[in-house]
Amino acid sequence: MKHTLVALLRDQPGVLNRAVSLFRRRGFNIESLTVGHSEQPGISRMTLVVDGDNTSVEQVIKQLYKLIDVLKVSDVTADANVSRELVLAKVFAPPARRSDLMQIADIFGARVVDVTPDSLMVELTSEPDAADRFIDLLKSFGIREMVRTGCVAMVRGSSTVSAPKSVDRAA
Amino acid sequence: MKHTLVALLRDQPGVLNRAVSLFRRRGFNIESLTVGHSEQPGISRMTLVVDGDNTSVEQVIKQLYKLIDVLKVSDVTADANVSRELVLAKVFAPPARRSDLMQIADIFGARVVDVTPDSLMVELTSEPDAADRFIDLLKSFGIREMVRTGCVAMVRGSSTVSAPKSVDRAA
Repeated sequence: MKHTLVALLRDQPGVLNRAVSLFRRRGFNIESLTVGHSEQPGISRMTLVVDGDNTSVEQVIKQLYKLIDVLKVSDVTADANVSRELVLAKVFAPPARRSDLMQIADIFGARVVDVTPDSLMVELTSEPDAADRFIDLLKSFGIREMVRTGCVAMVRGSSTVSAPKSVDRAA
Repeated sequence: MKHTLVALLRDQPGVLNRAVSLFRRRGFNIESLTVGHSEQPGISRMTLVVDGDNTSVEQVIKQLYKLIDVLKVSDVTADANVSRELVLAKVFAPPARRSDLMQIADIFGARVVDVTPDSLMVELTSEPDAADRFIDLLKSFGIREMVRTGCVAMVRGSSTVSAPKSVDRAA
């Protein structure tokens, strides 16, 4: 089963690598990994999508907590959450096929951000599953170039995934 | 000066860490780093925003090429390119301030994706500079939780950043 984990890390050299190594040693397949700024200066927020059963994901979360500079780890899979991914793709689209492609982009809520005589560049922000389906459709046109950010996730409602106030996690 | 680099890497354990270590050893400040799937299976695409003068960025690109599993590195700073970043933010917004916040979201083209009695969750896809300005405005409301993907970039027009066809880079 796919699990979406949100982890808060101190901005320190090597912390990302230690966290990723942990998953690799445990044989987890990391489907997507994204790290970026959080709301707190000096703290990065990592979103990980991994495939594994509940017990082994719980185990790896415990292991993550043992790493220095890992402040918080939450499995948000079971929570109602907003999961989003950004895709940029340059797609073959000679004039005869351009309107077909624009129709598909429109259905998915993607935007055309550049055009050349034989290609379009489209930008999509959506749930990762919808991004997969969109990309599958683009393949029938021919994808010249593509980049995906990987999934970022946030729990709906009032609760937050935040570092302890002191940022000095209890050992 | 800020440089935006696009690199194509084989999906192999440790390659990301070796690339990042290289920048760290050279004293580069990595402003943003994003890795995700590319259009080719088995090849990841990394977008890096680093601060440095032209000469030292050129040097580090040469060093990157020496790493195993680094297939291609392009400095796209001088090319006309599309740079985008995805931001999710949960912002304090009691009913009295909600319409102010929604107005700002509207101006930036952000979407409201969740609402609670005292907060809104907004999603923005934009150029990184616009994202910075948006986040600065959100701070006056109070940001409860935020995640950014970091910048992804793609050159406009017909040219692409692609791995050599054979994927066997000349030594």
